[in-house]
Amino acid sequence: MRIRKRQGAEEMVANNPQFVASDPKKWRGRWKERFANDHPIHIEIGMGKGQFITEMAKVHPEINYIGIDLQTTVVSFALDKVKEAELSNVQLLHVDGSDLTEYFADNEIDLIYLNFSDPWPKKRHAKRRLTSHKFLAIDEKILQPGGEIHFKTDNQGMFEYSLASFSQYGMIIKRVWLDLHASDFVDNIMTEYEEKFSQKGQPIYRVEVKFPERR
Amino acid sequence: MRIRKRQGAEEMVANNPQFVASDPKKWRGRWKERFANDHPIHIEIGMGKGQFITEMAKVHPEINYIGIDLQTTVVSFALDKVKEAELSNVQLLHVDGSDLTEYFADNEIDLIYLNFSDPWPKKRHAKRRLTSHKFLAIDEKILQPGGEIHFKTDNQGMFEYSLASFSQYGMIIKRVWLDLHASDFVDNIMTEYEEKFSQKGQPIYRVEVKFPERR
Repeated sequence: MRIRKRQGAEEMVANNPQFVASDPKKWRGRWKERFANDHPIHIEIGMGKGQFITEMAKVHPEINYIGIDLQTTVVSFALDKVKEAELSNVQLLHVDGSDLTEYFADNEIDLIYLNFSDPWPKKRHAKRRLTSHKFLAIDEKILQPGGEIHFKTDNQGMFEYSLASFSQYGMIIKRVWLDLHASDFVDNIMTEYEEKFSQKGQPIYRVEVKFPERR
Repeated sequence: MRIRKRQGAEEMVANNPQFVASDPKKWRGRWKERFANDHPIHIEIGMGKGQFITEMAKVHPEINYIGIDLQTTVVSFALDKVKEAELSNVQLLHVDGSDLTEYFADNEIDLIYLNFSDPWPKKRHAKRRLTSHKFLAIDEKILQPGGEIHFKTDNQGMFEYSLASFSQYGMIIKRVWLDLHASDFVDNIMTEYEEKFSQKGQPIYRVEVKFPERR
């Protein structure tokens, strides 16, 4: 999602290194140390303004969350929320998420959230989709064996593509929702984008997929 | 789909053994002999009144089709269509499709169509769904290695269940359509049920899944 630049966002991000690591590569393989506990680590690739990850963090203090986004403005909005709620179980990663092996060691992560990832609707851009095999290979590396991706989107074409991509990669579909908001899924925490678009009657698709235990 | 009984249906079916084998178990492993050629064999489990299978047979004379249904009335309607179009590449199987290994030998079938199969919406009836593991094991046996199931339905819950069931069985999703009639899929042949229900604006879901080449 493209959003308007926020004045002073860069300074805000730079001035809060306890929440947005200023040298994130340094923490590769050491995130548990940074959180100062052994809790599982869940990451959101493309967190936007951070509503999802901060609300999840409030509900699940037993989980550590890392929200990743390249855009300084959205990181600054997520930072507002982390600071306001005084969340010690959220870290923000202000980096390009295209090669996460630079920031995470093998098996360091327990679960990945992809929420409303850019659908790159043109066929020739399919390789840029975060559910394409190139990115799944990175996800598999940084995740525990048998680790999961929980993906939601309002984009029908992206969801169709992703189901086939996950399956053809060798992942197992644990559960699918073709209209999340009309389903019995009770713990849904909405992103900012999801709140806006679901009001238009657009169904929200969701899937939980799992990498194989052993390759 | 439950439909009203047709007067004289039993006699019609009994009197056309060239289209509806009167001793179908006899042809187990010998269907190519019955069709008198080596063409691939595609079956539809629960063919209803036969519009799908007969229209497919007209478009694809290079394929042999077997339509299966337990209800005498619907078999009689399918029979009308086969006779009217003088189709030599369609056979009808008037049997309970719950154990197809009685009628087909290992690897005898090339492709299975499931169209608008009974969704058995109650969770305690999930095992009766034709996409549950019990039935997939039978399908895998009678299909060629790497054989495919092409499934369509208007029932959201059935489709959600089936995607997970296919995947958890070890099948690969080749392609998914979440709104078939609004898609670029050009060769869709509609069932009677599909014609009726898609007019109500209900999306039609479709998936092509493939068994693994080797187990």
